[in-house]
Amino acid sequence: MSSEIGFEVHLNLPYDQSVEKVVAALKAEGFGVLTRIDVKATMKEKLGADFRSYVILGACNPPLAHRALSANSEVGLMLPCNVTVEELPDESSLVRIVNPIMMMTIGKLGLDSAVVEVAQTAFRKLENVARSLE
Amino acid sequence: MSSEIGFEVHLNLPYDQSVEKVVAALKAEGFGVLTRIDVKATMKEKLGADFRSYVILGACNPPLAHRALSANSEVGLMLPCNVTVEELPDESSLVRIVNPIMMMTIGKLGLDSAVVEVAQTAFRKLENVARSLE
Repeated sequence: MSSEIGFEVHLNLPYDQSVEKVVAALKAEGFGVLTRIDVKATMKEKLGADFRSYVILGACNPPLAHRALSANSEVGLMLPCNVTVEELPDESSLVRIVNPIMMMTIGKLGLDSAVVEVAQTAFRKLENVARSLE
Repeated sequence: MSSEIGFEVHLNLPYDQSVEKVVAALKAEGFGVLTRIDVKATMKEKLGADFRSYVILGACNPPLAHRALSANSEVGLMLPCNVTVEELPDESSLVRIVNPIMMMTIGKLGLDSAVVEVAQTAFRKLENVARSLE
């Protein structure tokens, strides 16, 4: 359930309930949802195109974000941590949670020990989120 | 001005004007701003901490996002494309634009030719944005 790019969890719940469950699980690990992109609505509005229910949540743990940004402001290019929820054809849902170590240690960021430490802490917390959903 | 992680442009403009200029430059290349995180306000609200003016803009070119998500829904973990604007001590501004090739070709995503093609197109467009700001 963990891949290089992130964690994947399959939920036997409809989309709306899955989104609620994910938001609550993030909150339990100190992550608030700062941004929310409703992909289906955005595709309809901007392109007139149909797309299944799909949301991109921007999750942020404020103390961790503050520590990372204070150490290296370039890390803002990698924040917040994305979590997606997608409706599957059988009306269950697929949750994906980005791997913050992969994101926050790209290029020179990976040489910054403060950033790497934050990324490792964020990884453990998001791993807890993924486990709590299973 | 281009690094592995993204483009950097220094603007001899105050922060607010820089943000406006960046949003207009993105629009000229077909990128709308779907999300906007005011880091300074968020740090104050969530932690009571002071931080300089800093915004994380989530930029999205809808036709490109639609093509990428239709090809491989995992790519949502890497969207939208982040653009940050930060106030510098001398009251000029630093703009950073993420490198979408680096973001969208991580792990197995880099094996998906449709995703790679979208990433290359997005790169050229964001490179135009960076050039137009200089």
